Amino acid sequence: MPKSTQKIRKIYMDYAASIEANPSSIHSFGADAKRKLENARKVVADALSARPEEIVFTSGGTESNNLAIQGVVYPYLTSPYSRGRKKEGVIPHIITTNIEHPSVLETFKLLEKWKLARISLVPVEENGIVNPKKIRKEIKESTVLVSVMYANNEIGTIQPVREIAKEIRHWKKNRKKQNFHQVLGSPGPRAPARPFENFLFPVFHTDAVQAVNYLDLNVQKLGVDLLSLSGSKIEGAGRVGVLYKKKSVPLANIFGGGNQEFGFRPGTENLPEILKFAKALQIVQKIKEKETKRLAVLRDYFFAKLSRTVLDIRANGDLKNRLPNNVNITVPNIPSDLLVIELSARGVMASAKSACQSGDRKVSHVIKAINKNIKETDGSLRFSFGRKTTKADIDYTVRSLSQILTKLKKWYD
Amino acid sequence: MPKSTQKIRKIYMDYAASIEANPSSIHSFGADAKRKLENARKVVADALSARPEEIVFTSGGTESNNLAIQGVVYPYLTSPYSRGRKKEGVIPHIITTNIEHPSVLETFKLLEKWKLARISLVPVEENGIVNPKKIRKEIKESTVLVSVMYANNEIGTIQPVREIAKEIRHWKKNRKKQNFHQVLGSPGPRAPARPFENFLFPVFHTDAVQAVNYLDLNVQKLGVDLLSLSGSKIEGAGRVGVLYKKKSVPLANIFGGGNQEFGFRPGTENLPEILKFAKALQIVQKIKEKETKRLAVLRDYFFAKLSRTVLDIRANGDLKNRLPNNVNITVPNIPSDLLVIELSARGVMASAKSACQSGDRKVSHVIKAINKNIKETDGSLRFSFGRKTTKADIDYTVRSLSQILTKLKKWYD
Repeated sequence: MPKSTQKIRKIYMDYAASIEANPSSIHSFGADAKRKLENARKVVADALSARPEEIVFTSGGTESNNLAIQGVVYPYLTSPYSRGRKKEGVIPHIITTNIEHPSVLETFKLLEKWKLARISLVPVEENGIVNPKKIRKEIKESTVLVSVMYANNEIGTIQPVREIAKEIRHWKKNRKKQNFHQVLGSPGPRAPARPFENFLFPVFHTDAVQAVNYLDLNVQKLGVDLLSLSGSKIEGAGRVGVLYKKKSVPLANIFGGGNQEFGFRPGTENLPEILKFAKALQIVQKIKEKETKRLAVLRDYFFAKLSRTVLDIRANGDLKNRLPNNVNITVPNIPSDLLVIELSARGVMASAKSACQSGDRKVSHVIKAINKNIKETDGSLRFSFGRKTTKADIDYTVRSLSQILTKLKKWYD
Repeated sequence: MPKSTQKIRKIYMDYAASIEANPSSIHSFGADAKRKLENARKVVADALSARPEEIVFTSGGTESNNLAIQGVVYPYLTSPYSRGRKKEGVIPHIITTNIEHPSVLETFKLLEKWKLARISLVPVEENGIVNPKKIRKEIKESTVLVSVMYANNEIGTIQPVREIAKEIRHWKKNRKKQNFHQVLGSPGPRAPARPFENFLFPVFHTDAVQAVNYLDLNVQKLGVDLLSLSGSKIEGAGRVGVLYKKKSVPLANIFGGGNQEFGFRPGTENLPEILKFAKALQIVQKIKEKETKRLAVLRDYFFAKLSRTVLDIRANGDLKNRLPNNVNITVPNIPSDLLVIELSARGVMASAKSACQSGDRKVSHVIKAINKNIKETDGSLRFSFGRKTTKADIDYTVRSLSQILTKLKKWYD
């Protein structure tokens, strides 16, 4: 073979860094990987109207939410805070609602249990939507974080994120003259000094994991400082998460390790999945409007047909301010786990939460939050749609549910 | 179509749980996913001679190490401990070496900075191997964790994990009659009550991320309580991590969220990657012995040829007790980043750590640990092999390095 056509020999001698090319390596394989990673970051940033350096890739939605919450609270563990901690009033205070995803709610409870934060859980109204004024009422001098989900995972209700952001802005405006650190103490050397000094708390975080396919993700319009996404809820996306982090927001890494992801998320980047995520998010953005309209029609059709066909059911959560792909009902007296299994036998995959603890299944804190008088025997049944869902699927599902209930009523009445 | 040949219709109405089937769902898609997950868990358990319920899947090696370390320390944040914490002596004490991977070393430093633990870093000897007696000397009444890596990621030295386990066992034996909680206080309600009462500290953790392809992973023989693995270092494995957790060891989850992975790791399981991991680990176990022998021959050949061809180099780390796929050298006076770039231009992908901080590149704490007199201008160059590496690759690499050095010497001498 003439020398000019010879391809340059490629010998990979960096298996200890990673089996595949590692974006942190400086050889040409590493540089290629780095380029791809940064392109993906830009695609995600564009989708959120953010800057690339404001996008942190994580392992998933649970980690994004934990990083957002723990990462805001942890700087206060360093020494100046520790000194202050002996006084009761200066433990950081954080606020959320009573219908958040467990990755937010349980993280709040962990921090409370570990005595690292005081928490306030603002109850939602009976329609599953929180009143922004009630959030504002909870904010105090020591509040470092407000976390309210964009859309609920069980009942699909959409929270008034912009209005909450506005309430927080107003609160900050009135407080501007006060030096935050006089109240809470300096966060210490761990946090970047300048942003901390200038940033006015509380930070506003939203868990947008369920919202990604249907709602506007423009972080400027939403007025949020932190926003979580997960690939597991996007068709074709990889199993990674994203945390949008406004540049000025002080955040600590919660893992010790390397300097990846601007130091906020150590560990070799999951490049193949990140690339899939970016591509899938681009597609979501393109079809969002059309798909939202299509599914909202199906959802309303589902609810209407259900209430005509199946007499004794209760719809959970606001019927208008909800995700277009979410239907959630309670069938009184019939265990919802049983309904899921019966539906599954007919080929319909749905999801249940029971009102009482049975086996592995957890009580639904969401259903309890919107219906204080719910009976122990009542559960909830969730149908959630995607791109492949058709009107025929819904007809079949309602028919199946109707047959199942006719059969079961004999036993449970 | 006659009814008997009709396939049952399948309608997925659980998109909000996950785009793909979620092992936590109770419908038949979920049950399938759950079965696959548990099969994978058993395969991994078998490879380690552990029980399936002792295998926790995480997002990667960095998370496994963080979970092992933070998860042992955190229960002491609960109230009974907090009361005790006012006395100086009872903050948990944790021990590691000075050449650990950043995901261990930086996590230790974070916990120290946050005042959640006191730390001891035991220095390794000049050959890059720690003396087990020196570990034992550091253990005291308040020591809750010893973490020593199985094999080093930079210089490939293998640590005497079994001997360290033996020293810890001896220490425990002498202490058996003493009630641990008289010293450190009860860990509180967060930890499982019984194991905590019976478990004798310290817990012994090893980071086996670099060892997985070549060394014995039998946790019984090793005598470890916690062991970390990462898919990113195994050919064909998915991007997930594993933490082996001996059943009796008390560990807290460090993420708030759902009940996945026995509560130790909330968040939807990354099933596709977990399945790849299990399969790849099975293959590793099968070819380990043969591949280890093959690569050890290549490694020794590489070192011998290097020292014949390139005069002025220094090998880093013990030449015998090291991974068969690791060659690490220092070329005095020549920046190692430059060597990586020159090698890369010739098609050879290697890795560098500089002795001085330059741009994004970190100082190698490992090279500094084994050579206190190293000059600021000296770095280190790592070649790490894998299944595709051949003798011809090594010949080409040594030839290339020799050419590069001949060229560069003019400038740097």
